[in-house]
Amino acid sequence: MFFEGSEKKAEVVVSKVVGSLLDFERQFWVELVARAQAEIISEIHNPYCRAYLLSESSLFVWKDRILLITCGETTLVNSILFLAKKIGPQNFESLIFQRKNEYHSHLQRTNIFGDVQQLREQFKGTLLRVGNLDGHFNYLFHLDKKFNSPLNDVTTELLMYHINGPAAKTLRTPYLSKDQIRMYLQIDDLFPDFQIDDFAFSPLGYSLNGIKDDKYITIHITPEEEVSYVSFETNIDIKGQDKDLLNKILNVYGPETYDLLQFDTKNDVTYDGVCINHVEDHLSCGYKIEFKHFHQVATKPDTSKIV
Amino acid sequence: MFFEGSEKKAEVVVSKVVGSLLDFERQFWVELVARAQAEIISEIHNPYCRAYLLSESSLFVWKDRILLITCGETTLVNSILFLAKKIGPQNFESLIFQRKNEYHSHLQRTNIFGDVQQLREQFKGTLLRVGNLDGHFNYLFHLDKKFNSPLNDVTTELLMYHINGPAAKTLRTPYLSKDQIRMYLQIDDLFPDFQIDDFAFSPLGYSLNGIKDDKYITIHITPEEEVSYVSFETNIDIKGQDKDLLNKILNVYGPETYDLLQFDTKNDVTYDGVCINHVEDHLSCGYKIEFKHFHQVATKPDTSKIV
Repeated sequence: MFFEGSEKKAEVVVSKVVGSLLDFERQFWVELVARAQAEIISEIHNPYCRAYLLSESSLFVWKDRILLITCGETTLVNSILFLAKKIGPQNFESLIFQRKNEYHSHLQRTNIFGDVQQLREQFKGTLLRVGNLDGHFNYLFHLDKKFNSPLNDVTTELLMYHINGPAAKTLRTPYLSKDQIRMYLQIDDLFPDFQIDDFAFSPLGYSLNGIKDDKYITIHITPEEEVSYVSFETNIDIKGQDKDLLNKILNVYGPETYDLLQFDTKNDVTYDGVCINHVEDHLSCGYKIEFKHFHQVATKPDTSKIV
Repeated sequence: MFFEGSEKKAEVVVSKVVGSLLDFERQFWVELVARAQAEIISEIHNPYCRAYLLSESSLFVWKDRILLITCGETTLVNSILFLAKKIGPQNFESLIFQRKNEYHSHLQRTNIFGDVQQLREQFKGTLLRVGNLDGHFNYLFHLDKKFNSPLNDVTTELLMYHINGPAAKTLRTPYLSKDQIRMYLQIDDLFPDFQIDDFAFSPLGYSLNGIKDDKYITIHITPEEEVSYVSFETNIDIKGQDKDLLNKILNVYGPETYDLLQFDTKNDVTYDGVCINHVEDHLSCGYKIEFKHFHQVATKPDTSKIV
């Protein structure tokens, strides 16, 4: 059976009048993710952040913002509408809603245009597309409202397709334990000092949340060969911390093609592969975004696939 | 309004018992293309071939075979079913049915799986996909029946996306005459001695058929910037005739990305851009196919598109 690994994502920053989101009851988040057809399966937290691992990806909650990522056939937009109803749409300082490049968009319950139509009943915003329709692309909706993001507000999304690196064979082995997977992914080496919460799905698939103070990492893996996909996302300031981190990750998974989407980036690191599409823009809400679609060069012929 | 330039295509070789297809009345072909929701708009012929320019692409008829190419929201599969009903499916020596990489597959009236389901009511065959689902790909259905193609039976399809070459500005100028377009495309230089039939659509779009003995060329252009697409197809033996022909064509249109699909090819020519996907296969029906997806390297950032 086909599973769509690529995600919808929403990041919401709320106004001070809402109070701290960390004070909201767990039940509130259970209800919020249920609107997207997802469930909380485990949780870690520290004084800055609560990280919920979901049946379909992740929810992170900070004092003034949430990040919700859901894959499969989830309806993430409904979680945003639920939040708007509860705290009032006027108390959204920023909303970024994204849908990533889907393998089979026609199998989804909703499409970006329907989602945005619903959002526009509550919010005034702009819908953008980065990337070409016949290649990899991302849809991104943001509010038409100036938002002053903190200086260290950097987000990096690394979306990897057609996984062929050292870990690929392992990831396609059914019924591995999460400890086995975590070892192959070199999590402890790549992200020392992060508090980790992970889950191995049966027979295949893996999700991980990690937090360290207000920093997060999240990894979601759909390993099935024909539609393999791994997403990695973080608010680590990659340039400040470890310039080579993304290349180390790419080396583990060895994707044939990948997208790099960065918000408010100062990076100019060289990555493996050829950049075949590059988009850069300053959003009217205040963020700078950069989208790059990389592809490996074909070095030897593949055979056709019988359908 | 969006127009899907990328095509469905069928090539059928019929058995000798059918007689010469060149003896079939024009009305037969009018009815056949009507099944695909297309119309004949003009015709050229020589002793080997009749070439019909359609409201949506082209039909070529030889003594023992036809080639039908249709774009937009046409239902080409119905033309094949019409032919099977008229001459009997057992008299198909070879059938190759293709659907090319579509910009908006969800806007089509039918999809490849529905088409193939209908074909399988008449024919035993195999459905293949060349290319990755998240990149450019082609679906191809062929009969499970050994076909001995003549030695000179070579087909080359060059499918060009995101047109930015010298002719691009011209092609996006509304209401040009076909003579103006033909001149910009350097048709007379590239294809001397071909008998040409062409048509300029209003306000935009252009189609061309050319024949010379049993050789054909056909070009179809959807110039609109966001979804620009040009297809070129020929049975000229490119290696034998003019090794550099495809590069000359690429130079005119300057696509950002293009696919090259060849049947029974002996070519190994170097083309502009990076090959990011390469598939090679020997079909059980007898043809050798080669699919290559090329992309230009991104040299400077683009901006996002407001949707």
